[in-house]
Amino acid sequence: MPTLYNRIANQSMERLAALSDGLFAIAMTLLVLDLHVPVAEAVHSEHDLGRALLALAPRFGMYGMSFLTLSIFWNGQQTQLNFLARSNRDLTWIHLAFLCAISMMPFSTQLLAEFPAYRTALLVYWLNILLPGIALYASWRYASRAGLVKDDVPMEIRRAIRRRVVFAQGWYALGALLCFLSVRLSIGLIFLVQLNYVIAPRFLAPRGE
Amino acid sequence: MPTLYNRIANQSMERLAALSDGLFAIAMTLLVLDLHVPVAEAVHSEHDLGRALLALAPRFGMYGMSFLTLSIFWNGQQTQLNFLARSNRDLTWIHLAFLCAISMMPFSTQLLAEFPAYRTALLVYWLNILLPGIALYASWRYASRAGLVKDDVPMEIRRAIRRRVVFAQGWYALGALLCFLSVRLSIGLIFLVQLNYVIAPRFLAPRGE
Amino acid sequence: MPTLYNRIANQSMERLAALSDGLFAIAMTLLVLDLHVPVAEAVHSEHDLGRALLALAPRFGMYGMSFLTLSIFWNGQQTQLNFLARSNRDLTWIHLAFLCAISMMPFSTQLLAEFPAYRTALLVYWLNILLPGIALYASWRYASRAGLVKDDVPMEIRRAIRRRVVFAQGWYALGALLCFLSVRLSIGLIFLVQLNYVIAPRFLAPRGE
Amino acid sequence: MPTLYNRIANQSMERLAALSDGLFAIAMTLLVLDLHVPVAEAVHSEHDLGRALLALAPRFGMYGMSFLTLSIFWNGQQTQLNFLARSNRDLTWIHLAFLCAISMMPFSTQLLAEFPAYRTALLVYWLNILLPGIALYASWRYASRAGLVKDDVPMEIRRAIRRRVVFAQGWYALGALLCFLSVRLSIGLIFLVQLNYVIAPRFLAPRGE
Repeated sequence: MPTLYNRIANQSMERLAALSDGLFAIAMTLLVLDLHVPVAEAVHSEHDLGRALLALAPRFGMYGMSFLTLSIFWNGQQTQLNFLARSNRDLTWIHLAFLCAISMMPFSTQLLAEFPAYRTALLVYWLNILLPGIALYASWRYASRAGLVKDDVPMEIRRAIRRRVVFAQGWYALGALLCFLSVRLSIGLIFLVQLNYVIAPRFLAPRGE
Repeated sequence: MPTLYNRIANQSMERLAALSDGLFAIAMTLLVLDLHVPVAEAVHSEHDLGRALLALAPRFGMYGMSFLTLSIFWNGQQTQLNFLARSNRDLTWIHLAFLCAISMMPFSTQLLAEFPAYRTALLVYWLNILLPGIALYASWRYASRAGLVKDDVPMEIRRAIRRRVVFAQGWYALGALLCFLSVRLSIGLIFLVQLNYVIAPRFLAPRGE
Repeated sequence: MPTLYNRIANQSMERLAALSDGLFAIAMTLLVLDLHVPVAEAVHSEHDLGRALLALAPRFGMYGMSFLTLSIFWNGQQTQLNFLARSNRDLTWIHLAFLCAISMMPFSTQLLAEFPAYRTALLVYWLNILLPGIALYASWRYASRAGLVKDDVPMEIRRAIRRRVVFAQGWYALGALLCFLSVRLSIGLIFLVQLNYVIAPRFLAPRGE
Repeated sequence: MPTLYNRIANQSMERLAALSDGLFAIAMTLLVLDLHVPVAEAVHSEHDLGRALLALAPRFGMYGMSFLTLSIFWNGQQTQLNFLARSNRDLTWIHLAFLCAISMMPFSTQLLAEFPAYRTALLVYWLNILLPGIALYASWRYASRAGLVKDDVPMEIRRAIRRRVVFAQGWYALGALLCFLSVRLSIGLIFLVQLNYVIAPRFLAPRGE
């Protein structure tokens, strides 16, 4: 039986949402902090500046990809929380673990941007996608069992939320596996999976949904 | 037909607003992070310090201008969201694209502050004004078609919001075009257009509004 | 007469509050970002580390003072907004100017921490207290005239809010003036005035309140 | 008797919560900002990169510990605020002092990560746990006496909240004391106490709760 303190602690969904929004907003903005403008001494003409900016293009791409990743997880968390009637301390800790993984995203993005040809960097990046995914899955599973989900949420929505995480993570894992062939291929597939979840959500979805 | 998951995802206007406020707040503050105080070794008198601060003046001007840009877009987004009855996943993604463009503002401001005489820097800066403008226009257009706008919003307000974006972007584009004459002239006109939207909103507005 | 767009724009008090809370939170935290831990190479014993930390003491003091400044302004703004029934675009712009001044606080704090004996640095710091003060005064005056204050706010509260800003700024101005005798004296008085507003609010208040 | 201004000031619990959430979110993310990716020049193979990342492991551990500390305090503050009916200026200032201590966490974490074998660093870190603890205790004590706690909060919950702070701080103090034997032992015990409050909250709790 939980202690009295633990039964009364951390029930505010609003504050969990506010903390999450703040942390996501910062993680999204910090990504860009790492894009350094070209050094003035190396630029003597419009042409130089254009080339220096073009040289930044792969980094921009990487940061765009991480912005997508963060957006997708922000959406996933939000969709879950919308269906919960209340929170409790265990659920809050699951989401704090989720946020801890999210806060590592600027690091693993920078790592992959610095070492785009290294398997190790790609696997760290993938780990940074896997861990929040596991946290979201655990959150929904725990909320379902602990009776925190709103009563009027039908079975198929509960299932859709759970399967969404599993399917997405399956595709990401496949993308990560490709790194043993080629890291760039791996990045490419992960990016495509993300784009799919943004633009054309009918592919890659579990059948019948 | 969208999948079940996509029909239920991302409907929280509050969280979208909270994420946006957080991201704007950070972008506004990061701008200043780039203003470095003079180096102590180079300062030996009040006079030295005064001169070193004066030398920072153009940078302060540039950051003031970017603070204005961010403020104008924050206002524009807020005004739109106030008239929406609810959100959905597509609208949320449009606003995430908007926020992605916003999060680049510290980068393009720093670029223009570093290269105030370069057309390339000015065009990148202008792109950073154009992209959020396109996102805001797309957001309103999509919300109107998808029936997300509150029922009691009269036709002239709907039109006013749409035309506002187009007019403002027209003036910014004109400002950007001037860079082929002189980049400083270009910066000057963009700044004037912004000031107009802050202080004397009767000029440059579509007729009859 | 304002245009239609301007009549409908920016009426959300919640989002203004959220933007402000975000910006204050960041400004408060960035202050600390500038406290660099001692360099490992220069530390060979507990004694070295203790001395290196003691050497940071004046900087800690300065940042404490700025945290106080930010807290006082956050409180002042919040108290005002609590008495407003609604916002409009002009009031919002006054508060955006207020936030712009607030976002400069990490810069002027760092300047004063770097040049604690320089009048110029002190005057810049004071300017950074004066400008938000002017914005808060303008905000209350404008809100009163434009009928944005809640109807049930009695005359003496309206007056108390207005006089609070004037009195505090009077003391800060006096503190700033002292810099022509000694900058450290100046810092001392400003700090005492701040402490007074935190701990012993009965002194320095307008009589009869 | 407090002045009129002080009686009306700072009563918004929502804004206090929003400021806190923002500040915690930033402090949590800034921790990671200090994890620098390995330098590209020093990495010539997957093996090099793996070793460089492994070398970062102690830092990751330290940051994980600080994320825990911040999470625990965020939870503690939230739990308290949930039981308050309203705020006032004195309580707000207690929480601002709490937030000031919280904002130092990235500094003291970095200090301990840089000097993991130094007693001085450990004691600074512990001070950074003690101070917010004192603030939380003072907040609850003040709120109880000033009648700010919701009427329907039973005596045993009031006591549970108060004793929670004292017990946790007792364990942390014991952990800090260990540093006179070994700093690493000290870090170990503090970490275990934290884990306990996250995972197995039945140990170390006051009896009967």
